[in-house]
Amino acid sequence: MGKMLHSNNKLETIPEVEALLAKMTLKEKVGQVNQKMYGWEAFRKTETGYELTEKFKEHVRFGDGIGVLYGLFRSDPWSGIRYENGIPESESAEVANMIQQYIRDHTRLGIPVLLSEECSHGHQGLDSLITPVNLGAGAAWNPQLHEELMSVVAEQVRAKGAHLALVSTLDILRDPRWGRSEECFSEDPYLAARLTEAVVKGMQGDAGDLIPNGKMIAVLKHFAAQGNGTGGHNAAPASIGERELREIHLPPMRAAIQSGAAACMAAYNEIDGIPCHANGYLLNKILREEFGFKGAVMADGCALDLLVHLTQSREKAAALALESGVDISLWDNVYTTLEKAVDEGYVSVEKLNEAVRRVLTLKFKMGLFGNPFVDTKSSHNKELADKINLESARQSIVLLKNEGILPLKKDNKKIAVIGPNADAIYNQLGDYTPFQQEDRVITVLRGIRAIAGDAEVAYEKGCGIRSFDSEGMENAVRLARCSDIAIVVLGGSSARNFEAQFDMNGAIVNTTGEEEMDCGENVDVADLELGGHQLQLLQEIMKTGTPTVVVLIQGRPHAIPWIAEHAPAILSAWYPGQMGGRAIAEVIYGQVNPSGRLPVSIPRSSKQLPVFYNHKAEGYKKDYYDMSGSALFPFGFGLSYTEFKYDNLRYSAQTIQYDQLLGGQKFKVKLDVTNRGNYDGYDVIQLYVKAKGSSITRRAKELKGFKKVWIAAGEMKEVILELGAEELQIFSSQNKYELEKGSFEIEVGNPFDYLNATLEIR
Amino acid sequence: MGKMLHSNNKLETIPEVEALLAKMTLKEKVGQVNQKMYGWEAFRKTETGYELTEKFKEHVRFGDGIGVLYGLFRSDPWSGIRYENGIPESESAEVANMIQQYIRDHTRLGIPVLLSEECSHGHQGLDSLITPVNLGAGAAWNPQLHEELMSVVAEQVRAKGAHLALVSTLDILRDPRWGRSEECFSEDPYLAARLTEAVVKGMQGDAGDLIPNGKMIAVLKHFAAQGNGTGGHNAAPASIGERELREIHLPPMRAAIQSGAAACMAAYNEIDGIPCHANGYLLNKILREEFGFKGAVMADGCALDLLVHLTQSREKAAALALESGVDISLWDNVYTTLEKAVDEGYVSVEKLNEAVRRVLTLKFKMGLFGNPFVDTKSSHNKELADKINLESARQSIVLLKNEGILPLKKDNKKIAVIGPNADAIYNQLGDYTPFQQEDRVITVLRGIRAIAGDAEVAYEKGCGIRSFDSEGMENAVRLARCSDIAIVVLGGSSARNFEAQFDMNGAIVNTTGEEEMDCGENVDVADLELGGHQLQLLQEIMKTGTPTVVVLIQGRPHAIPWIAEHAPAILSAWYPGQMGGRAIAEVIYGQVNPSGRLPVSIPRSSKQLPVFYNHKAEGYKKDYYDMSGSALFPFGFGLSYTEFKYDNLRYSAQTIQYDQLLGGQKFKVKLDVTNRGNYDGYDVIQLYVKAKGSSITRRAKELKGFKKVWIAAGEMKEVILELGAEELQIFSSQNKYELEKGSFEIEVGNPFDYLNATLEIR
Repeated sequence: MGKMLHSNNKLETIPEVEALLAKMTLKEKVGQVNQKMYGWEAFRKTETGYELTEKFKEHVRFGDGIGVLYGLFRSDPWSGIRYENGIPESESAEVANMIQQYIRDHTRLGIPVLLSEECSHGHQGLDSLITPVNLGAGAAWNPQLHEELMSVVAEQVRAKGAHLALVSTLDILRDPRWGRSEECFSEDPYLAARLTEAVVKGMQGDAGDLIPNGKMIAVLKHFAAQGNGTGGHNAAPASIGERELREIHLPPMRAAIQSGAAACMAAYNEIDGIPCHANGYLLNKILREEFGFKGAVMADGCALDLLVHLTQSREKAAALALESGVDISLWDNVYTTLEKAVDEGYVSVEKLNEAVRRVLTLKFKMGLFGNPFVDTKSSHNKELADKINLESARQSIVLLKNEGILPLKKDNKKIAVIGPNADAIYNQLGDYTPFQQEDRVITVLRGIRAIAGDAEVAYEKGCGIRSFDSEGMENAVRLARCSDIAIVVLGGSSARNFEAQFDMNGAIVNTTGEEEMDCGENVDVADLELGGHQLQLLQEIMKTGTPTVVVLIQGRPHAIPWIAEHAPAILSAWYPGQMGGRAIAEVIYGQVNPSGRLPVSIPRSSKQLPVFYNHKAEGYKKDYYDMSGSALFPFGFGLSYTEFKYDNLRYSAQTIQYDQLLGGQKFKVKLDVTNRGNYDGYDVIQLYVKAKGSSITRRAKELKGFKKVWIAAGEMKEVILELGAEELQIFSSQNKYELEKGSFEIEVGNPFDYLNATLEIR
Repeated sequence: MGKMLHSNNKLETIPEVEALLAKMTLKEKVGQVNQKMYGWEAFRKTETGYELTEKFKEHVRFGDGIGVLYGLFRSDPWSGIRYENGIPESESAEVANMIQQYIRDHTRLGIPVLLSEECSHGHQGLDSLITPVNLGAGAAWNPQLHEELMSVVAEQVRAKGAHLALVSTLDILRDPRWGRSEECFSEDPYLAARLTEAVVKGMQGDAGDLIPNGKMIAVLKHFAAQGNGTGGHNAAPASIGERELREIHLPPMRAAIQSGAAACMAAYNEIDGIPCHANGYLLNKILREEFGFKGAVMADGCALDLLVHLTQSREKAAALALESGVDISLWDNVYTTLEKAVDEGYVSVEKLNEAVRRVLTLKFKMGLFGNPFVDTKSSHNKELADKINLESARQSIVLLKNEGILPLKKDNKKIAVIGPNADAIYNQLGDYTPFQQEDRVITVLRGIRAIAGDAEVAYEKGCGIRSFDSEGMENAVRLARCSDIAIVVLGGSSARNFEAQFDMNGAIVNTTGEEEMDCGENVDVADLELGGHQLQLLQEIMKTGTPTVVVLIQGRPHAIPWIAEHAPAILSAWYPGQMGGRAIAEVIYGQVNPSGRLPVSIPRSSKQLPVFYNHKAEGYKKDYYDMSGSALFPFGFGLSYTEFKYDNLRYSAQTIQYDQLLGGQKFKVKLDVTNRGNYDGYDVIQLYVKAKGSSITRRAKELKGFKKVWIAAGEMKEVILELGAEELQIFSSQNKYELEKGSFEIEVGNPFDYLNATLEIR
């Protein structure tokens, strides 16, 4: 099936790049593959503007130029960059241009520098749009919307002068104990692949040789299998085999390449004993030779330093990484030794040339050889950005349970908004978040107040994410008791604070014990229940008899067996971004009909992990003696205020010849979806394949298609889904992508209500 | 390093076998690879003796002979065979001979049948010696003793007339939620490999062409990686890669082959998408071509039926399994179709010949072509067997905590023995246990009574393993209150009962909800805490202030954080077998100094799984935000009543040339171990390697040698351990077993007290 994969990265040899490369010294080449310094240390804010630091100039001298400068605009507790000492959006282009000008003026060849920035959910710089985290984007099941969102993010960040957007898209959520669960789109490779395509298209635009104006290059993180870390530990080994790797972890990158992906970042973890950064089989053979990737591979922060455990020398580590296909460093002290590594013969200059060529190609694609400067007058469309951001937040909200209490009626006059996530701006933004102008963030409390009309809205925090004071609890219960309705906003938090200690790569390494965060990079948990006294707070509130709506703001699926059984209404809003509180309020009041579907299975407990839906089908017992093996809420699940009905499943053919499928023919599946309720709304039609009779064992079911469709109350729409060779191929027992003949069942609808049929490849 | 692996299975072509094979029809060949029926259905007990059933005769007619007859002597709730309707030891040889005589008289070629029997921890037949389960054998860290134990087991079972002993040895305990944890020797491949060698040597004797008198062939279960089932689910997929497979799961079989292993059983699970029974790469390429295995591969029960999910036809499943290297069926409806499969061309008769040849070779090795009958007068040495069994139980007991309370002083006059495992014979015997003559099993209560002299020993059950009645609890607490000491015997149970429903392969599929078992095949748990009200019982007893000794009888490591913190003394005795209660009492009273060491890490909770000690060393955070990532008690840990001191580490060489190591030279490591306390006793000296600088990532540490030594109080012994190429090789980044140059650290002693040094391969 390799022939189906046409890379859109047409660039092979670019004359400008080759001409430049031919002129370069070894030192200059080494400079181009290094991304050594923290960008926020490149400048100092003065009374009148900005000045470049000696550290920056030293870095320029090191390689007579810089390949990539990381995080010039980064703002967060780790960098210590806030409004006082950082670069606001309005001045970003100016500082970016200073950097380019300095390099033009002070290096022999004047090669422009690439500016890379974290864009996990919007840019981690001041004044940025902060969107729902990936897990929310996954819950929206709307790649088109996500493409639009990524487009406005790129527009903003490009206007600041940056070129490379570091975006998590490749990690698949297999163990929700992992603190970076929030950065995953899904536990499912198909859904994640569609959203990864959206990121590439949204950020880079149409995949041509040159990135269009207002677009930038997405550096897709992380390649590969970081979501399979043993025990859910961050960056932990993935002990998986090649088939598991290809079935679960590679599809997003494979899809991204077809959409024109120009860069990715290697993952911290090892795969079956070989670190990704030393994994030539992964980066050269699979990614480049087999999948046709023509772009650049960036190292993760200090990841190359870890290779010294293998090589026992920095020069040899540099050689190993370069041979293995890593083109650009990040902060490490390894690629800085490349000159010596080449001189001592550990790696050839030809191998280094390949990496330099890929870095220069990124610069060419971004048009930097024409003009490295950015227009200081340009700005992005804030209004449009906010609008798309709000819509993304709305669509990410999943209604998990509703015993008739939602949408809230306007006759509730006294509304209690309670909980540690009800009015905590950073708690709803996730990890990798810059300092905020507080009025940019709409919390649930603010959202409810804006929408509740003349109702009286009162707030009590009740307890912290992990902390507890009994007075807060008492006040909250008292408030609930005298209210018509209680909206209890619980969940997790990835909000960092200044007391935390940070690792070389910005991950939390130690804490004061008083942090409220329980999620984010390096904040892995053993227990998936809600932290601290949150459950107790809810139980005390519910004892008052006041009708209660539970809203979860969270970066991972928490285990909520008690809540699922007892609370009358539950919404999961993930970390919904700056517009999150408004979106949640709109859903609560029925201005928006919830349309999110779970992008991840919600477990009953971490004792039953893993619970992903796409486990293998046959030959073993799924349940434990003392607990079900299944999820509390399954992947793909989500309620609506209306009711959708599925009818009349039909298909273009029940049987397609093997050769015809290979030739591009597809099973076209149609059904009628009727909105039988009183609310307009989106439904997500999911297509699962249940295959048997393959040369390999198959999964219980596999998502192979979906569509999010808007259907007005009382209306019917025909929905068409397609299954072709790409969806139906497997990585066979012969260790290649193949179609295999045989029949398979399809289920079309949602996990609890679907139509099915048996189709056949003959 | 392949050249280091000389198979001792010298047999290649056996004239007797070839001559027979040349005469056989297709039907007869198919008969020889089938092991279809439950052996207990082959006979009926009459008033005067035994008669063979029509079912048996029909089976003989099917293939004009039978390859292997499974479980003629099996007794347990599933088979429904007890003393009334089963075959006692004294009559076993007679029935075995009836079977052989019938086949000799009623088939064209008169090929004797192999009788296979379950011998997980002694024979699962009436009147058998029931030994500690494998986890206990692992805890004893004494391969020599285990070899002696296996020798007496083989002697007994062979005297009954059986030939093949099905013994779990290959499964590595990576997830203690698994109900078959008890059948694993360890979480560590090195320890498991040494004990697997002991099984082969003990059962088969010196590995020559013929199995000696009184010996039998061990069928080693299960090949491979069943201990890595996802989520600890029984028979669940192992999604691991090849390096993880080779580092962790293959060493026991690789070692067994060098000891002359003649047979193994394929594992239920798949590995990375390919079921073991359809895995030619595993069974033909690795096991046979690479490791040099010349023996037979048996299917697990009904496992071949599962292949029909892949092939969609029984004949094709038969062909797939035969091509993949499976020689003998078990109960399935797949190998019964082999005649048709050959006729229809799915598989060649030459391929079938290979399997038949292997079956006939087993018969030849057992001397059956000379004489298929067993001497009805022969019997084994019961006294010796009991003695070795008792010693095995003693050495398997691990003292986890002792705040001066043990050994118990004789001045305790009123002794309370309490708990669901204090006097429940089947609870201390594990899964795969036959019906017992109750006086053959010494419980803790009986053991204490026998040893406590004139002290008053009273018993209360208190609660069940999972069940609860408040009266029992009250009585137990009352008893504890008025006693000088409370011995509280808690833990798990794999005791099956008649109400349970059984799957085709005898595994529990459904339960009445009132079972007391929480362990055994298909009884996987999510929660590793003690079941039912056991912890509450202990807490209530400890509140009385009566000094309390906790004894755990268990088939898996339970999570016991509260007990570890609060109980003054804790013993883990695993399932210790028929002599278990006596061994425990001897340890409690100091007649035996405990010498067991943990063969598995004891977790704090199943929320932190996995916790095995030999995780990868570098590059990720080991702890969770809310829980340590480490074990509650580590692998290799165990206390003694005396104190051992390690001094004077020295070695034959700090550096050995690569070629010399390959040529057989070894690092010889010596140290002095002094017993500085007042009790004679065994210590287990453990040698761990901590390696870096390899082409692959390495583990935090790896057990690569150990010795159990007896040292009298006040004495000193020199202990010598060796490290050669076999211990130091790795499965390198080049995907082959290799030595790599570089230095490595050794730690010699135990997990908390060791000497260390740095050695080098140059």
